[in-house]
Amino acid sequence: MAKKLLHPIDSAEYSAENGLLDRRLFLRGSALLGSMMGYGVAQEVAAEPLVVQPWMQHPGPFPRPYDAPSRFESEVIRRGEPSSNKIPELGTVRTPIHQLTGTMTPNGLHYVRVHTGVPDIDPAQHRLLIHGMVKRPLVFDVESLSRYPIESRIHFLECGGNSELIYDEHPAQVGVQRLHGQVSCAEWGGVPLSILMDEAGVDPRGKWIIAEGADACGLTRSIPMEKIMKDAMIALYQNGERLRPSNGYPMRLFLPGYEGNMNIKHVRRIKVIDSPHQSRDETMRYSMMRTGGISTQFNCVMEAKSVITQPAPELKMKGPGLYQISGLAWSGYGHVRRVDISADGGKTWAQADLQQPVRDLALTRFRLPWHWDGRPALLQSRVTDNTGYVQPTRADMIARRGIWANYHGNCITTWAIDANGEVKHVYA
Amino acid sequence: MAKKLLHPIDSAEYSAENGLLDRRLFLRGSALLGSMMGYGVAQEVAAEPLVVQPWMQHPGPFPRPYDAPSRFESEVIRRGEPSSNKIPELGTVRTPIHQLTGTMTPNGLHYVRVHTGVPDIDPAQHRLLIHGMVKRPLVFDVESLSRYPIESRIHFLECGGNSELIYDEHPAQVGVQRLHGQVSCAEWGGVPLSILMDEAGVDPRGKWIIAEGADACGLTRSIPMEKIMKDAMIALYQNGERLRPSNGYPMRLFLPGYEGNMNIKHVRRIKVIDSPHQSRDETMRYSMMRTGGISTQFNCVMEAKSVITQPAPELKMKGPGLYQISGLAWSGYGHVRRVDISADGGKTWAQADLQQPVRDLALTRFRLPWHWDGRPALLQSRVTDNTGYVQPTRADMIARRGIWANYHGNCITTWAIDANGEVKHVYA
Repeated sequence: MAKKLLHPIDSAEYSAENGLLDRRLFLRGSALLGSMMGYGVAQEVAAEPLVVQPWMQHPGPFPRPYDAPSRFESEVIRRGEPSSNKIPELGTVRTPIHQLTGTMTPNGLHYVRVHTGVPDIDPAQHRLLIHGMVKRPLVFDVESLSRYPIESRIHFLECGGNSELIYDEHPAQVGVQRLHGQVSCAEWGGVPLSILMDEAGVDPRGKWIIAEGADACGLTRSIPMEKIMKDAMIALYQNGERLRPSNGYPMRLFLPGYEGNMNIKHVRRIKVIDSPHQSRDETMRYSMMRTGGISTQFNCVMEAKSVITQPAPELKMKGPGLYQISGLAWSGYGHVRRVDISADGGKTWAQADLQQPVRDLALTRFRLPWHWDGRPALLQSRVTDNTGYVQPTRADMIARRGIWANYHGNCITTWAIDANGEVKHVYA
Repeated sequence: MAKKLLHPIDSAEYSAENGLLDRRLFLRGSALLGSMMGYGVAQEVAAEPLVVQPWMQHPGPFPRPYDAPSRFESEVIRRGEPSSNKIPELGTVRTPIHQLTGTMTPNGLHYVRVHTGVPDIDPAQHRLLIHGMVKRPLVFDVESLSRYPIESRIHFLECGGNSELIYDEHPAQVGVQRLHGQVSCAEWGGVPLSILMDEAGVDPRGKWIIAEGADACGLTRSIPMEKIMKDAMIALYQNGERLRPSNGYPMRLFLPGYEGNMNIKHVRRIKVIDSPHQSRDETMRYSMMRTGGISTQFNCVMEAKSVITQPAPELKMKGPGLYQISGLAWSGYGHVRRVDISADGGKTWAQADLQQPVRDLALTRFRLPWHWDGRPALLQSRVTDNTGYVQPTRADMIARRGIWANYHGNCITTWAIDANGEVKHVYA
């Protein structure tokens, strides 16, 4: 299969060791890249190779009212498991990020973390109460909320426990879906919560709220009022349509950049209070154990992180040649300023191309052309956000947090590629 | 239900007749808008109104591998019909744009136009041939294409026949889904076609291509080479996941801004030719009859258009008070520069707020607060794009094209609201 490159790669087109190419090969127009291709993957043909397939010989069915993926894509699914044998309704399903491209997550594949399964809520019966330290306690239903001004914003959502295996002593031999798949990105539509709070009239002493969900566990978290008034939303829509039941139908709290569990699904109560409630979900769960027996609470913001999604352990390399390295980067502090990629375990770095426009608090797709020569390589990505925060190495992260933190695992991931093209998770 | 406004509206906050408010009420922060609200839709409560519903009393099921909407949203579907009794596989399903918000269309609700139903294509058997006036005829399958650089871009797609009822002599008494629902917007991911063309080596005399689909009708259209080399894509992904069968699985030609049928689904052949092929799909169909017996072919670019999606004929107004007018605008020539809204049938206009970022060749959401006093009103929206093109009135469009054009209906739509809050399609 392997043909020679049509256009030999000039040494000036390399931007780091082990075959990383200049990201501007994309930007300079495609002609150079096109003529460099000669992947040996397109076949040159002499005669007409097309055959009239069975599906061209008779009409197919009329399109469905609500569409579904091809039956040939039945392996592109959320995968996950209950977290405990005793509570089969507590667990996670993760987005197959190695099988997706771009920045948006289709609603069918958005990651989900549930504590007591997915409730089947009748929207006509659901109510949202805003009360506590307010002038006018108010109650809303879906219909009344739909009269308020709607905003839509594209934001990532990430579970605080995403990438927890990165704290393991030995590199977990799993794929990128299992390792980092509790992150997704959608266009969330809803009512700015500040409008509702202003209508209720918040007492100046009300510095926090406590939000409670209508799932069977009544998930409950305290949120600083500052965040509520800045950019919190009562989300009703996910990528244009109503929220999915597993993502908070009929309404959820959405807190851009904050860890997933604080974005209370099926939100039914927002009570204004003067100090954090210390709910079970912020004492027993979602606090971070540090070295020396210290535990930190309210680790709200998901720090900057990046991960290479192609290649990844689930995707074997198909022989030497040109590839596109692709992945996702994000930051709960703002937006991605740059992503660098290494093919030699962090010794040399090449700047990746970022899919435009780069949005605040949203997944950003990075890409870089790579000429793999077939020898072992160690791939890493490293994001820098607009605040100057640089994604740490694993050693740096562990030195700062210890190995018991469990949450917010955001260090650099390393994929080792061997001479057979197998991709493996390693520490480097 | 109706309470008084908490904060009476100042006359300076109006921006056009019949209650249109200043779009900057959104931008000035929410405090003013919040205190103005008093819609009478949020209920003030004295005692705790929340009850423990049945879904809070037992755990729900574990999330599904591929998620679906709530059973309470079963009416949010694509609706449509075969175009002919004789050919039940020829027809359209339209996006319920009155039920969506934001700019993205979820894959389950993307509009579809089919000529011979939806083919069930095995991606392992599908081939794309690039041949004709090229140095190296090449054949690709899904796997080989996946090795090439992937790009992702958010673009609208609109059927050339969308809004055809707007040419009717009398205003069609249908909803906005039936009238304008053959437009959707997704993040399309795929290989820039220019890279593949460069690898094949196009003969300088090759000024057009002919693209053929692998559906049973073998839909066939000629496309100018200039467009192919500028921004055409072989799309493999739709909102991150593989294309849906009804939208071209496993690969389609994507031509940003061009009428839908030219974006050949299930593309199997791209043949470089020196002049248009004059296929049946560009002689019998998809040419535009003008006044005086003239017919124009290759009406490639979808002109600028806007439509108010809320309120709309399917959505009855619920009494006087504050509302948010919301809708979609787009232009095949570039991006939306501004949208103006009238509540008095085009006499006075107020500038709407545009959801940011405004993207080239993508749906743009516009919104404006409106204080409806309960009297009859005539709502219109009018888009201006970055080339200075202004959406025409219906009279202007008909004067230019005649009433037989049938395609590219892009004039201003008028919704008449009566004192009962009913919304009706009228000509004005």
